[in-house]
Amino acid sequence: MKIKFKLKKKENNTSARLGEINFNGQTYETPMFMPVGTLGTVKTLSPEEVKDTGSGIILANTYHLWLRPGDQIVKKLGGLHKFMNYDGPILTDSGGFQVFSLAKKKDITEEGVKFKNFYNGDKLMLTPEKSIEIQENLGADIIMSFDECVGWPCEKRYMVDSVERTLRWAKRGKEVHTKKDQALFGIVQGGEYEDLRKHCAEELVKMDFDGYSIGGTSVGEDKPTMYKMVEYSTKHLPEDKLRYLMGVGDPIDIVENVIRGVDLFDCVSPTRLARHGHAYTRFGKINIKNAKYKEDNTSIDKTCDCYACKNYSKAYIQHLIKCKETFGARLLSIHNITYLNNLTKELREAIKENKILEYRDEFIKDYFGGNKDE
Amino acid sequence: MKIKFKLKKKENNTSARLGEINFNGQTYETPMFMPVGTLGTVKTLSPEEVKDTGSGIILANTYHLWLRPGDQIVKKLGGLHKFMNYDGPILTDSGGFQVFSLAKKKDITEEGVKFKNFYNGDKLMLTPEKSIEIQENLGADIIMSFDECVGWPCEKRYMVDSVERTLRWAKRGKEVHTKKDQALFGIVQGGEYEDLRKHCAEELVKMDFDGYSIGGTSVGEDKPTMYKMVEYSTKHLPEDKLRYLMGVGDPIDIVENVIRGVDLFDCVSPTRLARHGHAYTRFGKINIKNAKYKEDNTSIDKTCDCYACKNYSKAYIQHLIKCKETFGARLLSIHNITYLNNLTKELREAIKENKILEYRDEFIKDYFGGNKDE
Repeated sequence: MKIKFKLKKKENNTSARLGEINFNGQTYETPMFMPVGTLGTVKTLSPEEVKDTGSGIILANTYHLWLRPGDQIVKKLGGLHKFMNYDGPILTDSGGFQVFSLAKKKDITEEGVKFKNFYNGDKLMLTPEKSIEIQENLGADIIMSFDECVGWPCEKRYMVDSVERTLRWAKRGKEVHTKKDQALFGIVQGGEYEDLRKHCAEELVKMDFDGYSIGGTSVGEDKPTMYKMVEYSTKHLPEDKLRYLMGVGDPIDIVENVIRGVDLFDCVSPTRLARHGHAYTRFGKINIKNAKYKEDNTSIDKTCDCYACKNYSKAYIQHLIKCKETFGARLLSIHNITYLNNLTKELREAIKENKILEYRDEFIKDYFGGNKDE
Repeated sequence: MKIKFKLKKKENNTSARLGEINFNGQTYETPMFMPVGTLGTVKTLSPEEVKDTGSGIILANTYHLWLRPGDQIVKKLGGLHKFMNYDGPILTDSGGFQVFSLAKKKDITEEGVKFKNFYNGDKLMLTPEKSIEIQENLGADIIMSFDECVGWPCEKRYMVDSVERTLRWAKRGKEVHTKKDQALFGIVQGGEYEDLRKHCAEELVKMDFDGYSIGGTSVGEDKPTMYKMVEYSTKHLPEDKLRYLMGVGDPIDIVENVIRGVDLFDCVSPTRLARHGHAYTRFGKINIKNAKYKEDNTSIDKTCDCYACKNYSKAYIQHLIKCKETFGARLLSIHNITYLNNLTKELREAIKENKILEYRDEFIKDYFGGNKDE
């Protein structure tokens, strides 16, 4: 069954929204952070642990699963849910961002994008139709239109053409999409150009997608530019549909973009930072390898109730990370994802109370004024 | 409180024994396999997962923890149990085996062994007294005397002297051991020489240790030689004390040495094999990376009830291992440790029914006659 979204409340002073997703009898609230399971596993974690962090929707990457183990194999084995043993909602991206970020050389034509397989150098081509086909085989619950993801900065002349191509690709993808229990999202591009974001959003809305993503951020731009890109997009999107800001997960960016009307976020940061020994805390990001934690018998964050914070000391986790023991990355991954889920939970509370601007002020004071290491 | 051991039954036809360990109100049956948590973590697993595999005692390595994070730090943080969040019994080795296997150059004197730190090349010295001191700081429940571990083959002339030194070292360690809630084991050496094993065992027994280990196996010898070494040792050990065969965990070796009167086993194999994609099954060891499992939607072993076998397919685990996703090694570690724990459980049943020789015959038929890959 296709996921359902209901807008529950709009915050009084900003564009922030409170929403509810229904999926297979389960209810999930938005704004929500979605952890990334690139290859059909949220790195180091079991599906049960992912759920215990308070996560709902998780992400998997079309590009990576297409190449390994192959979408046909995932389909044969019963689809992503069965393959990776996750019964919550799953979202797949279109592969467009990986083509943009992983392929050194790419050839963009009207048909699609030709590039080399990141793993073995083979020639590959991804088209709007192919992306939908792969995503249908993978069988996620929310899927994305194939778009052109452009770096920053980008000349307007190029972006005008690119947005038109992304719109034509979105249309082609929608036409071939047959698996009607999957929600299909269109992706708003247009870089930092207000008129192009508006145009792209409006044209996508005319095509009536199940939800809308904001793409082309986290491609090199500074934060104020990112926030503008989001603002230029969300204000032209319908209120009754989900809005997903792709690849964004820095805590301050979640706060700022919830304020700008975003419902869904995803990012590899919590698990990637974990592998490098970094942990989010209310008072900023800490580096667990810091010498001052060598004999620190306290938890990462005393305000956190995650499995890592309930049972392990900073000193133990430092030891694990230094010794490259994967249980260390696992504990920090649990903590970091829990942190982001708790953050969105607090944002939801603030929306309910129409206090999101106060919440932002306090967040900034704590997070950037605290005892962070770096 | 010190662990207690009670011999419950001797098998009618062999030297196999059924026993019971009491520790902090918990009861564990022997023969038992003990997973290895070298650096204070059973690689990739949480303590809860280790328990769910049916494990009781777990091992940690004195040598490694001495160097990282340091025994003083572990002591300051409350000891190994608190450090690694494990409330079951913990055993530490003496460091002797790592000095033997990791140090390229070592200088053995009456005082102890000088060698270079495996991690940074610093000069180090381990003595019987130092080994006990470190193990007291780590705070395990079962600790080992410092011994000289000799390779195979070894000339008798050298082994005669070495055994005497190991005996003197055992005495020195016992004299300085003050933490009386820790059980201290003596280690039987003597290589493949029956008279030396007998002499070493008898002299250790005179010193009245809490239990006895069999050392100097898994150092290059063939299996029949290993089994003889064990036989020559166990027959001179008292029935009311635990016998621990150090570093042995190949399934057939567990079967053969339970028959020869061993109660405790440990080995890094289940977790090391897991990281390389190998899994034990009733019908032999399989390599999950084998092409034939690429689309295999069945579990690793249909007779196994572990978390991995209940929830994941061979194809998924192959995908994870091929992509170096640590959740793959974690699933195989859970499976492999569960396999060895189930094996010792079946051996205990066979002892109860006085059918251990029949069990061995069936085991060999299944394990070596099956559909194994390698």
